[in-house]
Amino acid sequence: MYHIGVDVGGTNIAAGIIDDNGKLIIRSSAKTGRHRPFAEIMGDMLALCDEIILRARIDAAQITTIGIGTPGNVDTHANRVVFGNNIPSFTGADFDVAVKEHYPHMKLYLDNDANVAALAEAECGAAKGKKNVLMITLGTGVGGGIIIDGKICRGFNGAGGEIGHVVIVKNGLLCNCGRQGCWEQYASVTALVRETEEELRKYPHSIIHKIIDGDISRISGLTSFDAMRKGDACGKAIVEKYIEYIGIGLVDMVNVLQPEIVVIGGGISKEGDYIIKPLREYVKKHVYTSSIPDFPQTQIVAAKMGNDAGIIGAALLYKQ
Amino acid sequence: MYHIGVDVGGTNIAAGIIDDNGKLIIRSSAKTGRHRPFAEIMGDMLALCDEIILRARIDAAQITTIGIGTPGNVDTHANRVVFGNNIPSFTGADFDVAVKEHYPHMKLYLDNDANVAALAEAECGAAKGKKNVLMITLGTGVGGGIIIDGKICRGFNGAGGEIGHVVIVKNGLLCNCGRQGCWEQYASVTALVRETEEELRKYPHSIIHKIIDGDISRISGLTSFDAMRKGDACGKAIVEKYIEYIGIGLVDMVNVLQPEIVVIGGGISKEGDYIIKPLREYVKKHVYTSSIPDFPQTQIVAAKMGNDAGIIGAALLYKQ
Repeated sequence: MYHIGVDVGGTNIAAGIIDDNGKLIIRSSAKTGRHRPFAEIMGDMLALCDEIILRARIDAAQITTIGIGTPGNVDTHANRVVFGNNIPSFTGADFDVAVKEHYPHMKLYLDNDANVAALAEAECGAAKGKKNVLMITLGTGVGGGIIIDGKICRGFNGAGGEIGHVVIVKNGLLCNCGRQGCWEQYASVTALVRETEEELRKYPHSIIHKIIDGDISRISGLTSFDAMRKGDACGKAIVEKYIEYIGIGLVDMVNVLQPEIVVIGGGISKEGDYIIKPLREYVKKHVYTSSIPDFPQTQIVAAKMGNDAGIIGAALLYKQ
Repeated sequence: MYHIGVDVGGTNIAAGIIDDNGKLIIRSSAKTGRHRPFAEIMGDMLALCDEIILRARIDAAQITTIGIGTPGNVDTHANRVVFGNNIPSFTGADFDVAVKEHYPHMKLYLDNDANVAALAEAECGAAKGKKNVLMITLGTGVGGGIIIDGKICRGFNGAGGEIGHVVIVKNGLLCNCGRQGCWEQYASVTALVRETEEELRKYPHSIIHKIIDGDISRISGLTSFDAMRKGDACGKAIVEKYIEYIGIGLVDMVNVLQPEIVVIGGGISKEGDYIIKPLREYVKKHVYTSSIPDFPQTQIVAAKMGNDAGIIGAALLYKQ
């Protein structure tokens, strides 16, 4: 049997088919056009699925399930997006009916994109074989997917896992959730870019000015890491501050959940040991259980699944 | 059938017997003597159980399980206290053998006291019938018990639920866990008493001076609430600040876990609506899902089980 996975983002829709071993056998993508009506986006999504089924030369009857990962809050029992902040027309739309009309024999599973990414890492990626997993995605914001005893932990209303929205700096920076000092305001890549811009002013001789060719719009999440590797004091200072900020919220989450493993995802996780090693040291030093001799401690690793995590995780929802 | 529950605290050991409906039919208590060897404390604990079995006139053969709630980190699979900070001799002690020698037919369940209290509230108390429960105990520290899908969520190593040890004030007050700015340093009753002492200096005419008869050692967690109810500006200011501090961490936990219900426990919860109502308002305003229309929101309630929560929760561990 086969399973379709669809990863709907604000920019692209990616779809793929996995086999019963979780192996991705084909993938394709299209533009989301996120402000369009639900029927249009859904039509393109189903056309994309038709295309990959055809190209993979699989009998559609052998595809038993379709999983969709979407931004926003999802009611997984009703297969409804309760609040689709990134794709407005998804809010309240009837995914079940749309899928049933097109693929009458397929069972639909709808879930939040952060949960789907966590599931992919837990089933096939950096946390393979682990039952208690926390996935932290450092990107525009800070996203979270919590897996406990092998099950995605969504809270009673499906909105759980908003780990970026815990206050670590009382009266700190204003967050788009309305609070002040949320972790997301300090540990997201957005925050790192902002920090790089600000810190740069204090270091007129930093190599970063050269890296970005004097154009601050060219600063990315990787800029300070690159500079640090070249021995730049400014780059080093920015990275160390950033690691501390990630570390604070990371230790908070470990103290609360004690997952067997934390998977750090998002583009910045490609920095690998430059981000993972200092985070491990930070957690080891600050976690509540640090003083207990020989106590089993949470592992910290980088994500492995890359761009296909969303597709594979969505396709794997049927296992939940 | 019947079930013994034992609540071991730093000061007292309380033991009781419940029936299959969770009804407590007898209870008794003794001093812990927390610095004594394990065998002595355990001996007194079992003597206490013998006493209540005798007094209840129950045939011991009808008592199938014994549950023990203890401070510290517990390995529930091995029935071992991994780190018994309050009762040092519990660390590594063999509870299974001790119980087996005395009551060969009873199955032992050992768990952390915060988890046990949460279980009691979820099974018989303020969260009865709810499957996703967070219990927050405001006392000397801030303790937490997380229940997801009816199961106590202990993390992979049994040390989960340390919700008091999340940083809400970066570079804030030093916590006994070694970090700075933990929620516990601001939302515990210890913190409230400290705040009352400090704030009092700014209000030479506060009614609190009279309430405590000029003796700051008489300040308790209830002092500022009492003063507030008498219209005292100092009391009001202290309570409002305290509520905000509880609220910050409470919203954090709701954003991460989205429990169906949060039970606020500890002596201070006896303030009832004076603490629960403003907390509800705070959460309603600040929770991540506040802007979603008609979205199901977490209930906030005061604990109901009182002093017997530890006994009843421990006795109910067999259900897990």
